[in-house]
Amino acid sequence: KVIWTVLAAILGYASSLPVGEDALCTAEELAKYRIIFTGKWSQTAFPKQYPLYRPPAQWSSLLGVTHSSDYSMWKKNEYASNGVRDFAEKGEAWALMKEIEEAGEKIQSVHGIFSAPAISSGTGQTSTELEVHPRHPLVSFVVRIVPSPDWFVGIDSLTLCERDHWMDEVSVDLSPYDAGTDSGFTFSSPNFATIPQDTVKEITCSSPSHPANSFYYPKLKILPPIAQVTMVKLKKSQLGLSAPFINLPAKSNEIIDTVS
Amino acid sequence: KVIWTVLAAILGYASSLPVGEDALCTAEELAKYRIIFTGKWSQTAFPKQYPLYRPPAQWSSLLGVTHSSDYSMWKKNEYASNGVRDFAEKGEAWALMKEIEEAGEKIQSVHGIFSAPAISSGTGQTSTELEVHPRHPLVSFVVRIVPSPDWFVGIDSLTLCERDHWMDEVSVDLSPYDAGTDSGFTFSSPNFATIPQDTVKEITCSSPSHPANSFYYPKLKILPPIAQVTMVKLKKSQLGLSAPFINLPAKSNEIIDTVS
Repeated sequence: KVIWTVLAAILGYASSLPVGEDALCTAEELAKYRIIFTGKWSQTAFPKQYPLYRPPAQWSSLLGVTHSSDYSMWKKNEYASNGVRDFAEKGEAWALMKEIEEAGEKIQSVHGIFSAPAISSGTGQTSTELEVHPRHPLVSFVVRIVPSPDWFVGIDSLTLCERDHWMDEVSVDLSPYDAGTDSGFTFSSPNFATIPQDTVKEITCSSPSHPANSFYYPKLKILPPIAQVTMVKLKKSQLGLSAPFINLPAKSNEIIDTVS
Repeated sequence: KVIWTVLAAILGYASSLPVGEDALCTAEELAKYRIIFTGKWSQTAFPKQYPLYRPPAQWSSLLGVTHSSDYSMWKKNEYASNGVRDFAEKGEAWALMKEIEEAGEKIQSVHGIFSAPAISSGTGQTSTELEVHPRHPLVSFVVRIVPSPDWFVGIDSLTLCERDHWMDEVSVDLSPYDAGTDSGFTFSSPNFATIPQDTVKEITCSSPSHPANSFYYPKLKILPPIAQVTMVKLKKSQLGLSAPFINLPAKSNEIIDTVS
């Protein structure tokens, strides 16, 4: 384990999160979290080419996994798996679920899988529960941006463990990513495979640096967050019978700006 | 309880499943199932007006709940809730999740909620796990037919308990239903609210009896099943770490006819 960590550090492999960090987790056995995904893709915040119909701006199902550092669902600047490609291009989850299953069987690197329903507009929320374990304290997920060539938002290997305890609440702003498998420039670009496949890249207001790009806003320094995710630890009293939710607002978009 | 059951029988309230049947469940405390939903909506089986683009035939996220007979997600010949209407018309899950949460809080009638990712074609599969409890042995779920005015498939209050044990496997063919909230006749009909709202109705090859209806096949006696659901009880050894799946086929459509 030590050797791997050192090697990984040498290779720059562990840029975002140290490989093996989960080995340090000595928190109590299991923790459950409610994960709430909030779409912030409004026409106000992202006026350029905002998709209004067939289909209007929306979010796919959320597909996620809790795992150890031996598994990676997707990673910036690395090649997307076939499962991530199918999900990012078409919202088709099966191949990705199969990859996760195999990682769970072969290298025991997966604790569980979770999914949350799609959101039928650019702004809105969806939610589900997830469970982490000291040996599998990392969370990864993907949500496809619809419509888009192969764009998604997500989290890669975020740990919920802080040495000897589980964090109470974690909230992260999300940026759009390009899976590197389809060469479309705009939300409604026709399907056009990228050959050879490119790596997963963050999409910013200046990259790809081309005026046709749907997220190209030369006057901005950074894009506003297109989505946000919050994970809240469930108290023991909130677990089990009749407590699947905590404090869901009455409407999914009541805490964010609505778009007519 | 006896009084309720008798009353319900008198009122014809318990047409599909006796109210209070879950009270008879004396199976062991908890059981987990894998639920596998299979779309069978192929152009071969349903050639009329089969949606090929913008959007092509597909299935929404699956949203389900395990519950007691005190809760009902939807019921044939009764009015759909606002949550079911939002889901059937737009695939928007939030209001329905909120209804389920409230039923769980107020009348303790809900054990848990589950969802599975959308399927990006008419034929294909999706899957997740669910948990039942002797006091909450019933399963209900909905999956929206996309595109459609307000059509869905699903299950209403199917029990997985058989007196003192949990069933090993249950498989059910599914028919399309009309939520009664949108008056569209065909898959791609524009949105047109049904006022006053109608009850949830099964769509058959002869009803609604109008040649324009997308499922109207006057030469057929019954429609082929448009989908199927299978619930398989997980063995103790399949629970917990690294066993989120059992025997998923490599491709979601390999066991069913594919459509070019």
